[in-house]
Amino acid sequence: MKKLIDLNADAGESFGRWRLGDDEHLLPLVSSVNVACGWHAGDPATMRRSVELARDAGIALGAHPGLPDLAGFGRRSMALSPADAADACLYQYGALRGFADALDVPVVHVKPHGAFYGLTLREPEVADAIAQACAAVSPELIVVLLAGPTAERAAAAGVRVAREAFADLDYDDEGHIIIEPNPVAKDPAACAQRVVDILSGHVTAVSGKRVEVDADTICLHGDRPNAVEIARAIRERLAAEDVRVAPIAEVLAAR
Amino acid sequence: MKKLIDLNADAGESFGRWRLGDDEHLLPLVSSVNVACGWHAGDPATMRRSVELARDAGIALGAHPGLPDLAGFGRRSMALSPADAADACLYQYGALRGFADALDVPVVHVKPHGAFYGLTLREPEVADAIAQACAAVSPELIVVLLAGPTAERAAAAGVRVAREAFADLDYDDEGHIIIEPNPVAKDPAACAQRVVDILSGHVTAVSGKRVEVDADTICLHGDRPNAVEIARAIRERLAAEDVRVAPIAEVLAAR
Amino acid sequence: MKKLIDLNADAGESFGRWRLGDDEHLLPLVSSVNVACGWHAGDPATMRRSVELARDAGIALGAHPGLPDLAGFGRRSMALSPADAADACLYQYGALRGFADALDVPVVHVKPHGAFYGLTLREPEVADAIAQACAAVSPELIVVLLAGPTAERAAAAGVRVAREAFADLDYDDEGHIIIEPNPVAKDPAACAQRVVDILSGHVTAVSGKRVEVDADTICLHGDRPNAVEIARAIRERLAAEDVRVAPIAEVLAAR
Amino acid sequence: MKKLIDLNADAGESFGRWRLGDDEHLLPLVSSVNVACGWHAGDPATMRRSVELARDAGIALGAHPGLPDLAGFGRRSMALSPADAADACLYQYGALRGFADALDVPVVHVKPHGAFYGLTLREPEVADAIAQACAAVSPELIVVLLAGPTAERAAAAGVRVAREAFADLDYDDEGHIIIEPNPVAKDPAACAQRVVDILSGHVTAVSGKRVEVDADTICLHGDRPNAVEIARAIRERLAAEDVRVAPIAEVLAAR
Repeated sequence: MKKLIDLNADAGESFGRWRLGDDEHLLPLVSSVNVACGWHAGDPATMRRSVELARDAGIALGAHPGLPDLAGFGRRSMALSPADAADACLYQYGALRGFADALDVPVVHVKPHGAFYGLTLREPEVADAIAQACAAVSPELIVVLLAGPTAERAAAAGVRVAREAFADLDYDDEGHIIIEPNPVAKDPAACAQRVVDILSGHVTAVSGKRVEVDADTICLHGDRPNAVEIARAIRERLAAEDVRVAPIAEVLAAR
Repeated sequence: MKKLIDLNADAGESFGRWRLGDDEHLLPLVSSVNVACGWHAGDPATMRRSVELARDAGIALGAHPGLPDLAGFGRRSMALSPADAADACLYQYGALRGFADALDVPVVHVKPHGAFYGLTLREPEVADAIAQACAAVSPELIVVLLAGPTAERAAAAGVRVAREAFADLDYDDEGHIIIEPNPVAKDPAACAQRVVDILSGHVTAVSGKRVEVDADTICLHGDRPNAVEIARAIRERLAAEDVRVAPIAEVLAAR
Repeated sequence: MKKLIDLNADAGESFGRWRLGDDEHLLPLVSSVNVACGWHAGDPATMRRSVELARDAGIALGAHPGLPDLAGFGRRSMALSPADAADACLYQYGALRGFADALDVPVVHVKPHGAFYGLTLREPEVADAIAQACAAVSPELIVVLLAGPTAERAAAAGVRVAREAFADLDYDDEGHIIIEPNPVAKDPAACAQRVVDILSGHVTAVSGKRVEVDADTICLHGDRPNAVEIARAIRERLAAEDVRVAPIAEVLAAR
Repeated sequence: MKKLIDLNADAGESFGRWRLGDDEHLLPLVSSVNVACGWHAGDPATMRRSVELARDAGIALGAHPGLPDLAGFGRRSMALSPADAADACLYQYGALRGFADALDVPVVHVKPHGAFYGLTLREPEVADAIAQACAAVSPELIVVLLAGPTAERAAAAGVRVAREAFADLDYDDEGHIIIEPNPVAKDPAACAQRVVDILSGHVTAVSGKRVEVDADTICLHGDRPNAVEIARAIRERLAAEDVRVAPIAEVLAAR
């Protein structure tokens, strides 16, 4: 069982008048945060606030680019060409950089959101385009992709990749996550057990099938109603198992 | 009469299926370009292309943030708070940085667009907020503001400011530009004469009144139908007058 | 003291993943609802649901067109020309008509939202343009405007107008409402008292000044955290005062 | 060979500052127009102008709802659920109705645009949802769908359907159209010949395969650079062939 892992949370998913997630309480419980960049969620004021929260929590800041679909929260798939996908990444990563630079916080990683993340699993050219766009920005920039063939492929191409698994999503037999349009509350203990399973090298798909997994970072969704409770349960379990939680860069360095 | 000036053009103002401006021919005729960042014009693919064009033309690249009003092309005023204005700047500046970093081109300046530029003239707090946001990103970043009290105020606050005048817009008696919703063709010779006037320290308002002006950079609008023709006329006139055209940073260094 | 009044609520202000307001419980407590039409809030699925809720509650359905500013919830003013204002009304009214026609519910009234409503107070040409656009659609269509000069002017031009007052907003000495960017909870009893004041022909401005008001309909904001509680307090007070609550059309017929 | 046909054009596809198509000259050459409704193209002022142009040309007015993707001009596919598809139709149809009602012009038909049209070919539930939404609005409302199984299925369900073929698009062996992201000029004579072929009951796919087709209406794209020239060539050829051009409703009545 691994004794070092990054916990990342999707956050900054409010928009204007609308609040979503309890980022103030969630961020101190994780080691990395993926901040929505305005296309699926996250207005400029929320982005600024998210960068401040990441800085104050002392966690690693990443961009969470989504598809240009605010009404669908970036969870409806869309036929982006590889060039469109690269540009979507650069635009949104950059937008977050604006706030990060002004607040003097580095942007460490990029993780596509929702159906954009889903595209990387089904269309290798899209995953490649995203990975290359990030590598063009900086060889230090880490791309977060689902642990499995997509992540291995990007890593083989020389991009800095963090392999991700999910504490709060179901898996199918292919090891793909099953995206919920509107996340509901989940049993914190079950999520904590899934984290331990992942650290031990597998997840159990909904069919009961055991799927091998090798992950550097584990994700929680900030828009799940009981996200904070889940995060606490995971932290307690990890403490009990003597697992250290650290930002992606530290996990990658120790790999 | 000044013998050194920057010529800047607003460009990259296509959007998706819609083409606007002849940037391929316009950019080689100026020394700085202000690229639309997606809020009033400019989709990601156009932004990438604009950065490539700036790089290929060897001119200085700047961000041209606008109000969030695509249908109005950022030319309808909007009550942005100073905080909103700062965030609008950072978001759009950053978005351009994404492409600029990937293509290894520096972003040298920021110039608000249309009614956002207009806001800086009427609301000093908005101009201050924009100037401070840019200064927070980097003390090197230059803010382009209308030559006059707004620019002087920002400069006094320690921000790096380029003072701008306009080759192709009319002025009122207060020395404020008169923004056209849909720019029409203008007489190239008259625009070239205005440039010479500006270099000589004044413009003539529509009323006939002479308004003093001290400018570091002179703007052309890329969405004016005969923008390229105007730019050529200006370059010929400047050559005849022995005036050198150079990027903003060089003009500021020589000031 | 008037014994017949319409109570209207701004509702349908969720957007995609984001929920706002408790429309299920609020709508049965009012007699008219103003449904957001997608520009400041309200996605298509929310609009459909809002029409169903209005139908099920047996209340009058109206359109609540806003400025094209989702990030600002239509509460930042914007320089719309009278033609733009008319077109914004027609577009959004029509969009609601699509759902209303499919569900066989009439659209009875149109009420501008937030800063769009504010524009009608400061720019008579905008109010006229909106009123004329609605009259062009149908002479039956009712426009809801702030009780006072704006409403009188539209009525004098032959448009069917309902004069509105506000249960949950403060007034200034000119009798203009003071719009809150992010409405907070208000004391239900104070709101109920304001309703009784309005029925008695006045409101008290924040300065303490008494402002005369003659209203056909009184508004509650669905995005106020305790909107349902306020609505209940008002209904109880109106019952105690023997005031009947009825849709706008009935109030206008009895005027 | 058929002697009666509707010619329809996709038009009203300008947006704000950006002009696209020569609707003034194109509309008098067709018998029906499909007006963009703001999601893939078409701002409110353009929609109003399009309704005026349709009225002045004396042709039938229809709504042309697209996917919510302005940057992609609605030509990138998107995973809309059937409910989303129905709501997208109602919203956009309704938005056009606002202008049509104000200008007293009936909205006769609805035709999905670009990738939304493409969805109806691949996902029968989406086509059904669109057809049912239109039927719910009015049993008179005509839905325009690609001549073939999709259109037959909708017609069998009792919806009023016009079966469409394309003068200016290529076909694959399944009889599906091949959508171009950025339409280029096409040979007008070849388009006119395709119209005659369609009237004779077939089209020739790019492979050379002959595909049977039975159409009520034939489409031209207004955003093709030489759209007006193509329309003229078709009208001349139809005149030479003694084919009468009439609005959809007349063609359906004569079927």
